[in-house]
Amino acid sequence: MSKRIAGPEIERLIQLLAKVPGLGPRSARRAALHLIKKKDQLFAPLTVAMRDALDNVKVCSRCGNVDTVDPCVVCTDPRRDEATLIVVEDVSDLWALERASAMNARYHVLGGVLSPLDGVGPDQLNIRSLVDRVAEGAVAEVILAVNATVEGQATAHYVTDQLSGYEVRVTRLAHGVPVGGELDYLDEGTLTAALRARTNF
Amino acid sequence: MSKRIAGPEIERLIQLLAKVPGLGPRSARRAALHLIKKKDQLFAPLTVAMRDALDNVKVCSRCGNVDTVDPCVVCTDPRRDEATLIVVEDVSDLWALERASAMNARYHVLGGVLSPLDGVGPDQLNIRSLVDRVAEGAVAEVILAVNATVEGQATAHYVTDQLSGYEVRVTRLAHGVPVGGELDYLDEGTLTAALRARTNF
Ligand SMILES: [Zn+2]
Ligand SMILES: [Zn+2]
Repeated sequence: MSKRIAGPEIERLIQLLAKVPGLGPRSARRAALHLIKKKDQLFAPLTVAMRDALDNVKVCSRCGNVDTVDPCVVCTDPRRDEATLIVVEDVSDLWALERASAMNARYHVLGGVLSPLDGVGPDQLNIRSLVDRVAEGAVAEVILAVNATVEGQATAHYVTDQLSGYEVRVTRLAHGVPVGGELDYLDEGTLTAALRARTNF
Repeated sequence: MSKRIAGPEIERLIQLLAKVPGLGPRSARRAALHLIKKKDQLFAPLTVAMRDALDNVKVCSRCGNVDTVDPCVVCTDPRRDEATLIVVEDVSDLWALERASAMNARYHVLGGVLSPLDGVGPDQLNIRSLVDRVAEGAVAEVILAVNATVEGQATAHYVTDQLSGYEVRVTRLAHGVPVGGELDYLDEGTLTAALRARTNF
């Protein structure tokens, strides 16, 4: 076990690749060897792309999306409907809904769900900034596209309460999202159907 | 589909991550978001590790292993038995055998198998350099640890022919390697057993 097969740079690469979701220790070794074999076609361009993304990525101060500009391209896209705001837990949910291409709306990323046992209260989520956006007056409908989990639904109730003083329709995704399921794992057809059949909250 | 969710740096990162074995388009998006969230703990160190490995990796001119030094650490390790040379198709097989820790030998990586239909003849593999190593006289046994495929066995026969003029015992892995199986996917126990029970070729 203490025998070295390759230099420390390669062992460190394998060790860190193993922490990437989707790869484990064995996949990381295969991935590292593949990168080394495809040095010019994949390893070098991927390394440059990682450096570019790492140096430029930022969180949008308006919606919480990640992008290389702030505000992000979703917030500044003039073709999107300002009147519809989709509230999601995580950036991955925003991306999943965009892949479904179901609506041409804007988004607000909460950054998680209320979870008192984990120390996540309203102040740890982007709820104040959501209320501020609604208070600006351009939003007619807030769609709560949170996960169908206990915490997600509790968060939806809390957000609805916070918005009760404003002239805004609050809706949620139609049933169709499996109970306990995570948005990011759903197929695009299910996401589209759930958005179309949304109901009043 | 033409709507942009994030800047071109992030889209390019996802596109290239999707080409890494073990990741697909959806896993690549999750991986990219995970990296962005773990910017200091994972994204930055992995980017540095990739740059270090990319700049330093080389193929060992003696055995064909990949390392950051040439000759590689396996070739220069004084505790390894010079008399035993394990011939493998690919660097991944060398790494798999080392994980099994079954023998304290040296290696020779052929870089593939004979496959006339794909234009791979003896000159496309590291066979000449293998014969040269054996001709130096220090090798007493060559273990042909090639995959149990038709091409692997044809390659083993060809290598054996090339070594027939030398005072060297040529062995192959014991049956125990599943027919049609790839070394790199086997568990360490099977690899160890197959090495221990190796037979004359
Ligand atoms: Zn934004
Ligand atoms: Zn070497």
